Amino acid sequence: MTLAELLYWVGLAAVAVSAVTGVFEAERKGLDLVGTVTVALATGLGGGTLRDLLLQHHVFWVADQTYVVAAFATGVITFFLARKRNIPPRLFLYPDALGLALFTVIGTQFSLQWEAPWLVASLMGVITGVFGGVLRDIFCNQVPLVFLPGELYASAAWAGALLLIALQALGVAPSLAAWLSAGLIFFLRWASIAYRIHLPTFGQR
Amino acid sequence: MTLAELLYWVGLAAVAVSAVTGVFEAERKGLDLVGTVTVALATGLGGGTLRDLLLQHHVFWVADQTYVVAAFATGVITFFLARKRNIPPRLFLYPDALGLALFTVIGTQFSLQWEAPWLVASLMGVITGVFGGVLRDIFCNQVPLVFLPGELYASAAWAGALLLIALQALGVAPSLAAWLSAGLIFFLRWASIAYRIHLPTFGQR
Amino acid sequence: MTLAELLYWVGLAAVAVSAVTGVFEAERKGLDLVGTVTVALATGLGGGTLRDLLLQHHVFWVADQTYVVAAFATGVITFFLARKRNIPPRLFLYPDALGLALFTVIGTQFSLQWEAPWLVASLMGVITGVFGGVLRDIFCNQVPLVFLPGELYASAAWAGALLLIALQALGVAPSLAAWLSAGLIFFLRWASIAYRIHLPTFGQR
Repeated sequence: MTLAELLYWVGLAAVAVSAVTGVFEAERKGLDLVGTVTVALATGLGGGTLRDLLLQHHVFWVADQTYVVAAFATGVITFFLARKRNIPPRLFLYPDALGLALFTVIGTQFSLQWEAPWLVASLMGVITGVFGGVLRDIFCNQVPLVFLPGELYASAAWAGALLLIALQALGVAPSLAAWLSAGLIFFLRWASIAYRIHLPTFGQR
Repeated sequence: MTLAELLYWVGLAAVAVSAVTGVFEAERKGLDLVGTVTVALATGLGGGTLRDLLLQHHVFWVADQTYVVAAFATGVITFFLARKRNIPPRLFLYPDALGLALFTVIGTQFSLQWEAPWLVASLMGVITGVFGGVLRDIFCNQVPLVFLPGELYASAAWAGALLLIALQALGVAPSLAAWLSAGLIFFLRWASIAYRIHLPTFGQR
Repeated sequence: MTLAELLYWVGLAAVAVSAVTGVFEAERKGLDLVGTVTVALATGLGGGTLRDLLLQHHVFWVADQTYVVAAFATGVITFFLARKRNIPPRLFLYPDALGLALFTVIGTQFSLQWEAPWLVASLMGVITGVFGGVLRDIFCNQVPLVFLPGELYASAAWAGALLLIALQALGVAPSLAAWLSAGLIFFLRWASIAYRIHLPTFGQR
């Protein structure tokens, strides 16, 4: 398996894991099967879609519908599993952190290749990583979780995106830079959950 | 009148009917004239707009502003009518089902012509049919009605979109396939309202 | 300083002022630093972004990331200032009206240059002026303020956009037409605040 193939499968896995978090949110709101699958699709595909639209690139899942199948099948299967028995959402905390890391690195990397300026590329990485979850929360009529006080999430993604860009500017090999950046995002996410590291909020004056 | 002309007028009518449902929602939220017209525009034009953006096609109402005029005029007229006297929203249940059927068939057909893969084309049909209503509900700060337990709506649209694609793959003439598919969507919507057919939800374990 | 340079700086200022209104909204919802900066970015850049997407033009802040820096820096600085001491939001009422006027005129002007039909161009002007605030309110889980009964806002912008188009059609010099239209928007906004001029709503039958 080549690196490109590995990244492809990893991307599909990240879409599937994100779709699962969409199902859990849909369950809390009592949505039906269509609503749940739609939220699963939006959560799994939303980040990359917004990135592609903003960069005027063809939308990735329109070009390759395997991504749609992955999010769709995950949504349907999780819907019926979750109706049968409770699945603790905590089970998906670390897969989700992995998905965040991979989405962000892939999103930043693509944006650099499509010649976005560096600051824009780093934001595109963050958008790829977190916008699916924002869309999930808007569809479920909630203030997006990622905006509320809590453990590092978007900020972890942004730190990783900036590291990726810095390493590449310094001439580090792309694949090494990618793994280091994904590692940083995963580590920051893990550390902030384990040690309850928060960003400043309006509440704590 | 040719078939193309018929479809054009039918498309305008579908935009207008959707815009009316936007006005009723705006009334419930107590919006003012600008808010109401905006929600009417978003409801009438939102589905086709998202489809066009995702497929990197020019947005249909930017190319032909007759659609904007149709949604705008419908929104303003319905606003002033609805302030004068109560119009029962049930009056629009079947026109809305017709709009759903036509939007979905047109959206799927266009997507196939623009060479979207079949699964993507069927989703684009559903998006064309239902996303206007999703946008209406997000603007009015509600969980989109189409996601909540209730009669078949998006699922009826999806069944019709899949039938259209299957019939065309089997070599059925495009216009016959289109009418059969639109008929299926309308029939499913009617049957699910008449016989209270629901999809499974999280509530009914 | 040429007119083009002036408009560029004025556009940056309008982005910054809009970003500030995003921070105030984020404060009311208790968002953290990431949420606040995201809402500031969405408020400052959202209107022009939707216009560019709908017209299939490259997104302005992807092409020139100075706009991102302006919204970002404004968001961060205002976040920390607003945590230290209360800034009365009324302080920004007139800068915001100026931002509305400038955004609308610039948005309409660009749309005409990109050969949008006149009605579409006027709506693009309004979208440029108000959609950032709509996005801010959706992210903060509220019915968009601009849709609710209150002083003239989107309607003031639309009147100015139509005046700009009419003046240009009559052969008035572009820069004069632009200043007159921006002046009308600012005047309508000021007058509607000073004299409490409202549009009809569903409430006042």
